[in-house]
Amino acid sequence: MTTPYKRLDKDQAAVLLVDHQTGLLSLVRDIDPDKFKNNVLALADLAKYFKLPTILTTSFEEGPNGPLVPELKEIFPDAPYIARPGQINAWDNDEFVKAIEASGKKQLIIAGVVTEVCVAFPALSALEAGFDVFVVTDASGTFNEITRHAAWDRMSAAGAQLMTWFGVACELHRDWRNDVEGLGALFSAHIPDYRNLIHSHSKFTSGK
Amino acid sequence: MTTPYKRLDKDQAAVLLVDHQTGLLSLVRDIDPDKFKNNVLALADLAKYFKLPTILTTSFEEGPNGPLVPELKEIFPDAPYIARPGQINAWDNDEFVKAIEASGKKQLIIAGVVTEVCVAFPALSALEAGFDVFVVTDASGTFNEITRHAAWDRMSAAGAQLMTWFGVACELHRDWRNDVEGLGALFSAHIPDYRNLIHSHSKFTSGK
Amino acid sequence: MTTPYKRLDKDQAAVLLVDHQTGLLSLVRDIDPDKFKNNVLALADLAKYFKLPTILTTSFEEGPNGPLVPELKEIFPDAPYIARPGQINAWDNDEFVKAIEASGKKQLIIAGVVTEVCVAFPALSALEAGFDVFVVTDASGTFNEITRHAAWDRMSAAGAQLMTWFGVACELHRDWRNDVEGLGALFSAHIPDYRNLIHSHSKFTSGK
Amino acid sequence: MTTPYKRLDKDQAAVLLVDHQTGLLSLVRDIDPDKFKNNVLALADLAKYFKLPTILTTSFEEGPNGPLVPELKEIFPDAPYIARPGQINAWDNDEFVKAIEASGKKQLIIAGVVTEVCVAFPALSALEAGFDVFVVTDASGTFNEITRHAAWDRMSAAGAQLMTWFGVACELHRDWRNDVEGLGALFSAHIPDYRNLIHSHSKFTSGK
Amino acid sequence: MTTPYKRLDKDQAAVLLVDHQTGLLSLVRDIDPDKFKNNVLALADLAKYFKLPTILTTSFEEGPNGPLVPELKEIFPDAPYIARPGQINAWDNDEFVKAIEASGKKQLIIAGVVTEVCVAFPALSALEAGFDVFVVTDASGTFNEITRHAAWDRMSAAGAQLMTWFGVACELHRDWRNDVEGLGALFSAHIPDYRNLIHSHSKFTSGK
Amino acid sequence: MTTPYKRLDKDQAAVLLVDHQTGLLSLVRDIDPDKFKNNVLALADLAKYFKLPTILTTSFEEGPNGPLVPELKEIFPDAPYIARPGQINAWDNDEFVKAIEASGKKQLIIAGVVTEVCVAFPALSALEAGFDVFVVTDASGTFNEITRHAAWDRMSAAGAQLMTWFGVACELHRDWRNDVEGLGALFSAHIPDYRNLIHSHSKFTSGK
Amino acid sequence: MTTPYKRLDKDQAAVLLVDHQTGLLSLVRDIDPDKFKNNVLALADLAKYFKLPTILTTSFEEGPNGPLVPELKEIFPDAPYIARPGQINAWDNDEFVKAIEASGKKQLIIAGVVTEVCVAFPALSALEAGFDVFVVTDASGTFNEITRHAAWDRMSAAGAQLMTWFGVACELHRDWRNDVEGLGALFSAHIPDYRNLIHSHSKFTSGK
Amino acid sequence: MTTPYKRLDKDQAAVLLVDHQTGLLSLVRDIDPDKFKNNVLALADLAKYFKLPTILTTSFEEGPNGPLVPELKEIFPDAPYIARPGQINAWDNDEFVKAIEASGKKQLIIAGVVTEVCVAFPALSALEAGFDVFVVTDASGTFNEITRHAAWDRMSAAGAQLMTWFGVACELHRDWRNDVEGLGALFSAHIPDYRNLIHSHSKFTSGK
Repeated sequence: MTTPYKRLDKDQAAVLLVDHQTGLLSLVRDIDPDKFKNNVLALADLAKYFKLPTILTTSFEEGPNGPLVPELKEIFPDAPYIARPGQINAWDNDEFVKAIEASGKKQLIIAGVVTEVCVAFPALSALEAGFDVFVVTDASGTFNEITRHAAWDRMSAAGAQLMTWFGVACELHRDWRNDVEGLGALFSAHIPDYRNLIHSHSKFTSGK
Repeated sequence: MTTPYKRLDKDQAAVLLVDHQTGLLSLVRDIDPDKFKNNVLALADLAKYFKLPTILTTSFEEGPNGPLVPELKEIFPDAPYIARPGQINAWDNDEFVKAIEASGKKQLIIAGVVTEVCVAFPALSALEAGFDVFVVTDASGTFNEITRHAAWDRMSAAGAQLMTWFGVACELHRDWRNDVEGLGALFSAHIPDYRNLIHSHSKFTSGK
Repeated sequence: MTTPYKRLDKDQAAVLLVDHQTGLLSLVRDIDPDKFKNNVLALADLAKYFKLPTILTTSFEEGPNGPLVPELKEIFPDAPYIARPGQINAWDNDEFVKAIEASGKKQLIIAGVVTEVCVAFPALSALEAGFDVFVVTDASGTFNEITRHAAWDRMSAAGAQLMTWFGVACELHRDWRNDVEGLGALFSAHIPDYRNLIHSHSKFTSGK
Repeated sequence: MTTPYKRLDKDQAAVLLVDHQTGLLSLVRDIDPDKFKNNVLALADLAKYFKLPTILTTSFEEGPNGPLVPELKEIFPDAPYIARPGQINAWDNDEFVKAIEASGKKQLIIAGVVTEVCVAFPALSALEAGFDVFVVTDASGTFNEITRHAAWDRMSAAGAQLMTWFGVACELHRDWRNDVEGLGALFSAHIPDYRNLIHSHSKFTSGK
Repeated sequence: MTTPYKRLDKDQAAVLLVDHQTGLLSLVRDIDPDKFKNNVLALADLAKYFKLPTILTTSFEEGPNGPLVPELKEIFPDAPYIARPGQINAWDNDEFVKAIEASGKKQLIIAGVVTEVCVAFPALSALEAGFDVFVVTDASGTFNEITRHAAWDRMSAAGAQLMTWFGVACELHRDWRNDVEGLGALFSAHIPDYRNLIHSHSKFTSGK
Repeated sequence: MTTPYKRLDKDQAAVLLVDHQTGLLSLVRDIDPDKFKNNVLALADLAKYFKLPTILTTSFEEGPNGPLVPELKEIFPDAPYIARPGQINAWDNDEFVKAIEASGKKQLIIAGVVTEVCVAFPALSALEAGFDVFVVTDASGTFNEITRHAAWDRMSAAGAQLMTWFGVACELHRDWRNDVEGLGALFSAHIPDYRNLIHSHSKFTSGK
Repeated sequence: MTTPYKRLDKDQAAVLLVDHQTGLLSLVRDIDPDKFKNNVLALADLAKYFKLPTILTTSFEEGPNGPLVPELKEIFPDAPYIARPGQINAWDNDEFVKAIEASGKKQLIIAGVVTEVCVAFPALSALEAGFDVFVVTDASGTFNEITRHAAWDRMSAAGAQLMTWFGVACELHRDWRNDVEGLGALFSAHIPDYRNLIHSHSKFTSGK
Repeated sequence: MTTPYKRLDKDQAAVLLVDHQTGLLSLVRDIDPDKFKNNVLALADLAKYFKLPTILTTSFEEGPNGPLVPELKEIFPDAPYIARPGQINAWDNDEFVKAIEASGKKQLIIAGVVTEVCVAFPALSALEAGFDVFVVTDASGTFNEITRHAAWDRMSAAGAQLMTWFGVACELHRDWRNDVEGLGALFSAHIPDYRNLIHSHSKFTSGK
C-alpha cells in the first residue's frame, strides 16, 4: 500500500546533459537567461562535486544549433561526449546508451534544451528501458510555459521524478556533516541569498 | 514495472483539426493571437510535410462560429472535411469517425478550439475507443488559463499525451538526416529565433 | 486497457451549489469578481436550462458568512435549500445527502466557495460514496492560485473530473440541433465575445 | 472502485514544522513575505488550537541557516524540538522519527522551508513508512514557482495530500458548532477579509 | 505655484463613446471580456444617471468592424449617433464636433476601442481645441499592455486626465446625500463586491 | 534650473487616513489582503512613532461601507475623527479641512481606500490649496492595476509625491542615531525579512 | 494654454529601422518572438504602403550582432542602408543623419533593437536636433520590462511620442476612404483577429 | 523648444554604489536574485572598465544590514568607502558629498538598495544640488513593483534619467571601435545571450 521512495543515491546516479548549445539556448524563454545559466552551471558543478559520471551530448554542432556551451566542456574535459550526427532523441544514438550502460548506474539525472524534446524523449526512453529518471526541471529550458507544462505532464505521467538542481544536491548529500565546506561552497556559488547569509554569518560570528 | 513509451510514428499517425473557425477564434484568449495563428499553421505545415492523413471538421459554419480559417483549407485542399450539422463532440459524427478509421491510423494528433470542448471531447472518446491520443496543446486555444488547465487535467488523467507542435514534429522526424532541409524550413518558417540562427549561421559560414 | 469516458448526461446529473454567500464571496481572490459572478450565474442558468435537479446549501447564514446571493435564490425558488447549522463539509449534513439521493442522479456537478473546503470536501465524500463528480472549477473560488491548485490536485487525484461551466453546458447539450436558440441564448448572456459574434452575424446576414 | 477519502481527524494528526529558520526564510521567494509569515503562524495557531502534537526541527542552527523563528518557539514551548546535527531529510534523524512515533499519530501534517527538500524529503519517507501525509503547501516556501511545482508533482505522485492551512483547519474542525468562537478567532487573526466580515457583522447586528 | 484641480462637474461634462462595435471588440485583449463589458455598461449607465449629454459614434459599421453593441443603442436611443463614413479620428468628422459643441460642455469624458486610436486621436484633438479631457481608461480597450501604456503616456503628456468609470461617477456625484439610492444602485449593478456588501448589510440590519 | 527636493520633515507633516473601513476593504484587489493590512498598520504605527498629527475620516459608516477598521481607532484614540455625512471628497467636508489647518502642518501624508477616489480627490484638492502632498501608495488600495495606475498618473501629474510607508518612515527619521531601537522595532514589526535579519544578527553576535 | 497635437502626416514622416539584426534579436525578451516579428514586419509594410522614406542601419554586421533580418532588406531593396562601422548611437554616424536630412522630413518614426540604446539614443539626439520623434514601441525590443519602462520614461520625458505600429498606420491614413482595400490588407496580414473579422464578414455578406 | 540631451560622458561621470549590503539584499524582491546580482556586478565592472571614479557607501554595517557584498570591495579596493554612522540619505553625510565633489564630476550614476530610499533620497538631493543624475534602475532593488514604480515616478518627476546598466555602458562607450574586445568581454560576462552569440560566431567564422 505504501509508496517506495525513489531516492537519489550518489553511488547509483549518472548525469546526462543534453544539447546545451549556444544556438539552441536562444530558444529558451521560459526561464530568464541569467537564472538559466546559473541553474545549468549549478547542476554541472554538483555533478562534479559528487563525482557523478556525466555524459555530454549535442545535436548537429556544425549547424545553427551551435557548439556546446564552453563552460560545460571545461567542467567535464574527460566526460563521454557524443556529438550526435542526427538523432533527435539521444536514446536513439547507440553510443549514448552505451556510455550510460558503461557507467553502471540505474538512476539518471537528465537536463537539456528544449525540455519537451531533448529532455522528454530520452527520459521516456530511459523509463521504458527500466531506469529511474530524475528530471532537473530548472536546468532544462523551453519556449514558454505551455511547452514546459505539457512536457512535465508527459514525463510525470510516465513515472519521472520532477526535481530541481537544489533538490538533487540535497538528496545526494544526505547529511551536512559529510562535507560542510563543500556543499556550502556549492550553494554560495549559485544561490546569491545563501551567499549573503554566509557572509553576514561570518562577519557577525567573527566579530570583525 | 517499466512504462511503455507512447511514441509518435509517422506511419501510424493522423491529424485532426477541430473547429479552427474565424468566429470561434475570437474566444481564444489563453494564447496571444499572433502566437496562436503561428502554432496552428505550424501544425498544419508539419502534417503536410510528414504527409499525415489530416481530417478537418467544423461546427455550424453558417452561424456565428464562422467558416474554417482559409489557410487550413488551402493547405489541405483534398482532405476529408466534415462540416458537422450540430454534434458538439466531433466523435459523435459518424462521418468523422469513419474518416479516421479509413486512414487506418491508431495514433491521433488532435488540436482545436476550444480546448475543453472541441479537443477534450473527441480526445476522451478516442481514448475510450482504444486510440492513442496526442493533444497539441499550443495549437488548441480556450478562454483562459483556468479552462486550459482543467481541460489538460481531464485529458491527462484519461491517458492522453500532452504535447506541442514542436515536440510532435521532432518525435515524428526522429533523425535530422532524414531531411535536414525540410525540417529546417519548417522551423525557420515558424520559430523566429530558429530562423535567426539559420541566417547568422549561413552568413558566418559563407563568409559573405 | 482503454479508459471509460466519464461523460455528463443530462438525465443523470444534478447540480450542487455550495456556500455562494455574500460574505464568503469577499474571500474569493483567484478569479476577478466580474468574471466570477458571471461564471456562477452561467452555471445556474445552464442548470435551469437543462432542468437539472439543483440543490442549494449555505453555511451559517446568520453569521458573517452572510446570506446566499439573491440571484441564486431567484433562479431556483423551489430547489432544496439546506441552511446547514454548522457542518463544514456539506456531505456531513444528512439533509443534504438525502436531497441528492432523492434526485436519483449519479453524476454530481459541484461548485462553491471556497474551492479547497466547500467544494473539495463534499467532492471527496461523494467520490467515496460512489458518485461521479464533476467540479466546475471556474464557478468555484478561493483565496489565491496556491489554494486553488492544491485543491485541484487533491480532487483530481481522487478521481474528480475538473471542468468549467462552458464544458459542462456543451457536454450536456451534445448536439446544437437539440435547441439552437436556447444554447445560443445561454452563450450570448454569459460570453461577451460570443454575443458579439451573434450580433455581427445577424447584422451581416440580414443585410440590415 | 470508489476512492477512500483520506480525511484529517484531530485525534489522528500530528504537525511537523521543518526548518522555519530566520536565515533559510530569505530563500523563500514563491510567496510574499507578509503572506508567508501569516500562513506559517496560522498553521502554528491551528495546531495549538486543535491541541495537535507538534514537532519542531531545525537544520544547523549555528550556521547561516539561523535560529528557529522565535514565534514558533513561543507558541510551542514544550514541543519536541530536534536541532538536527546534519541530516537534511529530517526523517534520517532517529530522534525526529521517534518523536513522531511517540505521538501515536498516523496522519502527518507537514510544512517547512524549502518545499522541495525540507518538506518533500520527509514527506516521501513518511509515505514510504506507511503514514498518511498532508502537505500544507502555503506554509511551505521555496525559491520560485518552478521549484514549487516540481516539488508538488513529486509529492502528489507519491500519494501526499496537497492542502493549505485553511483547508486543514476546516477539515479538522468538522462542525462550527464544536466551537464557533474559537474557529472564528483563528480566522479573524489570519484572514483580513474574514476579520472585516466579522467586524461589519458585529456592528450591523448590534445596531451600534 | 499650486495646481488647479481639473474636477469633473456634472453641469460641464459630456460623454463620447467611440467605436464600441461588435467586430472591433474582438481586438480588445488588455482587459478580460467580462470585465470590459461591465466597465463600458457602467460608464453608459452613469452617463444616463447623471443625464450627461452623450454622443455615440462608429467607424464603418457595414464592414468587418460590425455594428454598435446593441446595449449602447438601447441606453441612448435619442443620443446623437454619428456613423462616420471613413474618418479614423472622430474629431475629423464635422458632425461629431458639432454635436459636441451643441452640447455646450467643456469637459469631455471619452472612452472607446481601441485606446491608442479611437480614444487617443480625438482626445489629443480635443485638448488642442481647448477642452478638458477625461479618459475613462477601463472602458477603453486595446490589443495589449504595451499599446495601452503607450497610449496612456501620449495622452497624459498632452494633459488628459486618466480616470476610470468609478472615479468619474464619484467625482460627478460629489455627495452621497444627493441621492443615496441612485448611486448605490449604480454600484450594486456594476461592482459585485459592493452588491454583496449591500446584501449583507441589508440582511444584518433588517434582522431578517 | 535645479529641482527643489520636497522632503518630508517630521515637524511639518500630518497624516490623513481616509476611509479604511471594513466594508470598503473588500473592494481592494490590487494588493494582497495580508500585505495591505500590514502596510496600513505600518503607516499607522509610524505616524504614532513620529508623533505626527493624524486625522481619521470615514464615509457613511452606517451603510455597507462599514465601520473604521478597529485597529486604527485603537492606535489613535484621541485623533480627530470625522465621520463624513456624505461628502465623497473628504476635502469638501469643512470639519476635515479645519482639522488639517488646526494641525498647522503643510506636508500632508495621505492614504486611503479606494486610491482613485478617497485618496486622489483630497490629494488634488490639497495640492490646489497649496499643500505639499505625499501619497502612501502601498497603504492605499483599489480595484485593480488599471485603476491604480490611472490614479497615480493623475496625482503625479498634479505634483503629488508618490511614496510608500517605508520611504516615508526613512525620510522622516533622517538618521538611525536619532533612535535605533525605535526604528528597528517598527521595521521588525512590519517587514518579516528585516525581522529575520535582526534575529539572526542577535543570535550570531550574542554567541548564544 | 492648449497643447498642440503632434500628429503624424504622411508627407512629413520618415521611418528609421535601427539594428534589427539576426544576432541582436536573441536579446529581445520583453515581447514574444512571434509577436515581435509580426510587429516589425507590420511597421515595414506600412512604411512601404505609405511610401515613407525609410532608412536602414545596422551595427557591426560582421560580428556576433549578425546581419540585418533578410525580410527588411527584401522589403526595402533601394533604401539607404548604413552599416555603421562602430557608432552605437546611429545619430553619431554622419551618413545616417545625412540620409535623414536628404529625405526632407521632420517627423521621424523610429524602431529598433534594443530599445534603451538603439532606439533611445538616436531618439534623444533627434529631439535635440529639433525633429519630432515617434517611437514605435511594439516594434522595438529589449531585455525585459525594467529596461523597457526605463527607456520609455527617458524618451517620453524628453518629448518623444510613444506609439505603436497600429496607431502609426491609423494616424497616417486619416480616412478609410483614402484606400479601404490597402489598409484592410495591411491589417489582415498583421492582425489575426482582424483577418478573422474580414473572413466572417465576407462569408456572411456574400451569402456563400 | 528642443530638449537638450543629457548624455553620459565618461569624462564627466562618477558612480555611487549605495548600501549593497548582505543583509539588506534579502529585502530585494522586485528582481530575481540571480539577475540582480548579475546587474550589480555588471555595473561595477563597467565602472571599472571605464575608469569612472566610484564611491562606495554603507549604512550601519555592524547591525543587521550586514557588510558590503565582498565582490564590490574586491573590485574597488581603493575607492572612497564611507561607512555611514547613521544617515539614511547618504547625501546627509558630509564625507560622502565631499568624495563626490573631490571627483570633480557633474554626472552621477547611482544604484543601491532599496530604490525608494537609498537611491531616491541621494538622487533627489543631488538634483537639488545641481548635478545630473542617472539612476541605474536594474542595479537598484526594492520590495516589490509598487515601491519600485513609486520611486521611479518621484525621481523621474524631479528630473533624473532612468537608465539600466546596459544603456549606461553603451552611452559611455559611444563607438565600438574605441575597444571592441573590452566592451565585448563586458557583455559576454554579463549577458548570457550575447555570450552565446559570440561563441557561435567564433565557431562558425573560425571554421573549427
